[in-house]
Amino acid sequence: MSKKNILIAGAGPVGSLLGIYLARAGHQVKIFERRPDMRRHEIPAGRSINLACSDRGFRAMADAGIADQVREVAIPMYGRVMHSVAGELTMQPYGKSDQAIYAISRSGINEELINGADAFDNVSLSFDERCVHVDLDKPSATFKNLHTGAETTIEADVLIGADGAFSAVRSKMMLRDRFNYSQHYLPHGYKELFIPGNPDGSYKIEKEALHIWPRGDQMLIALPNLDGSFTCTLFMPFKGKEASFEALDSQEAARAFFQEVYPDALDLMPTFDDDFANKPTSSLVTIRCSPWVHEDKVALIGDASHAIVPFYGQGMNSGLEDCRIFAESLAEGGDDWHQILQIYQNNRIANANAIAELALRNFIEMRDSVGNPAFLQKKQLEKKLASMFPERFVPTYSMVTFSHTPYAEALRLGDEQEVMLKQMMEKPGLFDDLDTPQTEAYLSETFATWEQRNR
Amino acid sequence: MSKKNILIAGAGPVGSLLGIYLARAGHQVKIFERRPDMRRHEIPAGRSINLACSDRGFRAMADAGIADQVREVAIPMYGRVMHSVAGELTMQPYGKSDQAIYAISRSGINEELINGADAFDNVSLSFDERCVHVDLDKPSATFKNLHTGAETTIEADVLIGADGAFSAVRSKMMLRDRFNYSQHYLPHGYKELFIPGNPDGSYKIEKEALHIWPRGDQMLIALPNLDGSFTCTLFMPFKGKEASFEALDSQEAARAFFQEVYPDALDLMPTFDDDFANKPTSSLVTIRCSPWVHEDKVALIGDASHAIVPFYGQGMNSGLEDCRIFAESLAEGGDDWHQILQIYQNNRIANANAIAELALRNFIEMRDSVGNPAFLQKKQLEKKLASMFPERFVPTYSMVTFSHTPYAEALRLGDEQEVMLKQMMEKPGLFDDLDTPQTEAYLSETFATWEQRNR
Repeated sequence: MSKKNILIAGAGPVGSLLGIYLARAGHQVKIFERRPDMRRHEIPAGRSINLACSDRGFRAMADAGIADQVREVAIPMYGRVMHSVAGELTMQPYGKSDQAIYAISRSGINEELINGADAFDNVSLSFDERCVHVDLDKPSATFKNLHTGAETTIEADVLIGADGAFSAVRSKMMLRDRFNYSQHYLPHGYKELFIPGNPDGSYKIEKEALHIWPRGDQMLIALPNLDGSFTCTLFMPFKGKEASFEALDSQEAARAFFQEVYPDALDLMPTFDDDFANKPTSSLVTIRCSPWVHEDKVALIGDASHAIVPFYGQGMNSGLEDCRIFAESLAEGGDDWHQILQIYQNNRIANANAIAELALRNFIEMRDSVGNPAFLQKKQLEKKLASMFPERFVPTYSMVTFSHTPYAEALRLGDEQEVMLKQMMEKPGLFDDLDTPQTEAYLSETFATWEQRNR
Repeated sequence: MSKKNILIAGAGPVGSLLGIYLARAGHQVKIFERRPDMRRHEIPAGRSINLACSDRGFRAMADAGIADQVREVAIPMYGRVMHSVAGELTMQPYGKSDQAIYAISRSGINEELINGADAFDNVSLSFDERCVHVDLDKPSATFKNLHTGAETTIEADVLIGADGAFSAVRSKMMLRDRFNYSQHYLPHGYKELFIPGNPDGSYKIEKEALHIWPRGDQMLIALPNLDGSFTCTLFMPFKGKEASFEALDSQEAARAFFQEVYPDALDLMPTFDDDFANKPTSSLVTIRCSPWVHEDKVALIGDASHAIVPFYGQGMNSGLEDCRIFAESLAEGGDDWHQILQIYQNNRIANANAIAELALRNFIEMRDSVGNPAFLQKKQLEKKLASMFPERFVPTYSMVTFSHTPYAEALRLGDEQEVMLKQMMEKPGLFDDLDTPQTEAYLSETFATWEQRNR
């Protein structure tokens, strides 16, 4: 195989992991990153401090040989804990008893991945370098050093844009004819709040869970940090007369609102007033585009090609999975980089669109449905089916989170399952006792019929 | 009313017409245009040479006092003439016997509108000025003269981006948080071909019609010009093994293909070989965005805010209607420009999205359905209903083309009508004779029931 010079714009988790894969395949890799080297500098948290990593992310990192270090600093969350306004708690497991998603520090995982890339002799990393120009046909990219102002143009055989939702590489691709693109914002924004740990480092609420305060058109969530604290995120409409960031325009209004809607959370937030006033209110965008590649020269990956909303916890996971599939395409395409990039994009675009859709839908589920009885019954039925047919029935959430089924297939099959579940739930008396022989016979028969039609 | 300084980027039909409306309302208007003044220079036809103007366009121009000049140089097209492969012709009227859409030269109508604007003392026009920078908050725009290279920055109270599908003003708005945007290309491109007139200036095929050669995934259309010629447009996929621009990569291949698929048209095209080889193959984009306005300072209009595919003949019409609605908003909002721009965008965004959708659907109808029997029966049924209930039943095509019903309402009502038509068409024997008392009674009753539900 001929070795290529590959330039990666962006040393986030995705750019770094891709660098590892490409270095292992023997290519010469240069990675340029706009931000400072986070291993040496405290980076202001422009984005959320922690995130959820699940099986797709771990598998991609395992294939690149660095999953173990990451898992050591992650906190398993085995389910959702729902908080009602009255403070009642309900736990819903995410999957089987050993299945969990993992809360992890965004900078922590990124540092591990940067270290992983840095360990290769054939990888060079440059920080504080902002991409100011891209030439897709050479390909090359020009970076401006944020300290010296010096501009450096790097030519390469292949240029990869792993430079995030506002990708400079993608901006250049967008000027080409027939580049399909959409950026769509939710009417909701988010703001981070904080629940500190106890003085002894223990947790004020259940540690190994993702906490949700579902409140219809808005919600609060909390993910655990290693030090006993939780990072909370409030999702709420930007505009509106009552429950909106616009409406909560004073310390008093915000506090009164939380006292009414999130009283148990407010009790745990000593810095609420400051946090609400000073933390930024950020927006939530879904970005879709195609193509993701230009000839045998340029490819987009991660948020640069598909930014999604965070409600399925799959933003980083899908980007890391991009890297794994890119590596598979590399193995499959041999020396033909036109072919490699085509295999990669043909595999990923439909899957990226599917997880974008699933993530948008999961916002509705999290903020709204998780609190309602029909939804809880559906979860109960899914659990029953999964226990009756452990190899054959996998709930949508589990396909997305605990399997490597392509997202597009998970979306399609999940929609088909939804129809079947709805049909089952309409049977009078079904939930009186799911474990009677008659009910089990009914479920078996209905599922078998469905399965014949859908497999 | 306080008079404003208004800067319009773009002197196409929409920018010019808006200039007229604003000048009539007493504002000071500056219009800057990237291209040369087409009244003095032959402009290379980057886009199609002629287009269809219908009631919405004429009404907007009439309100601004310049419809009559335009109608004088327009050719009415009372229906579609379909050409089968065997050369058989079928005529479908577009509406009632006096209803027509009008073929008109793109540069002709633009020149009339520029002249209309230029007649006002409070309008200034500058050509050969490319917009190189926009400041949304001042607002201001900087233009670079294409001859001298000099840059001029114009500050204004209000900046209007009427600068087309690749709007510089919109590009700047796109950098703002929470700007929703999509550009989506069809897999089809188009190429212009040519049927000359007879030496005596007469037409080789029916003059007062839009000609269509529907061929499934592709089609050819022709619109008459004043000199006896027709401008034809071939719509075909860019890629594909057979009927695609990619596949027709030689003079022989193109000619052989036309000989097989469009033989009667080819016979009328003496310059086919040259035209096919040398005319550009252009792409077809749909652009949607929101918001269209920024505070009380900036607004987008026409293609800059909603570029659509040409298959409903509503691209220019919708842009001219934007101007009419802008003028209404101006009358309604008084001196409050924040209010004026809000009224304008609240009225137009949903309607622009609706005509974008209708135009995409009409491509399927034109290239595919117009030749099939079920479609012809539906048209026959629509005509019958329109004659039975002239005030109450208006076919979708007529709502869009011959009425001023908002596009969104036409889309909604059209979808509802479609359900009713389908139901009627399923009645056995309906088309044996639509004029029997029994059939008329059935149609009356079904329509009345539908009407109660939908009005």
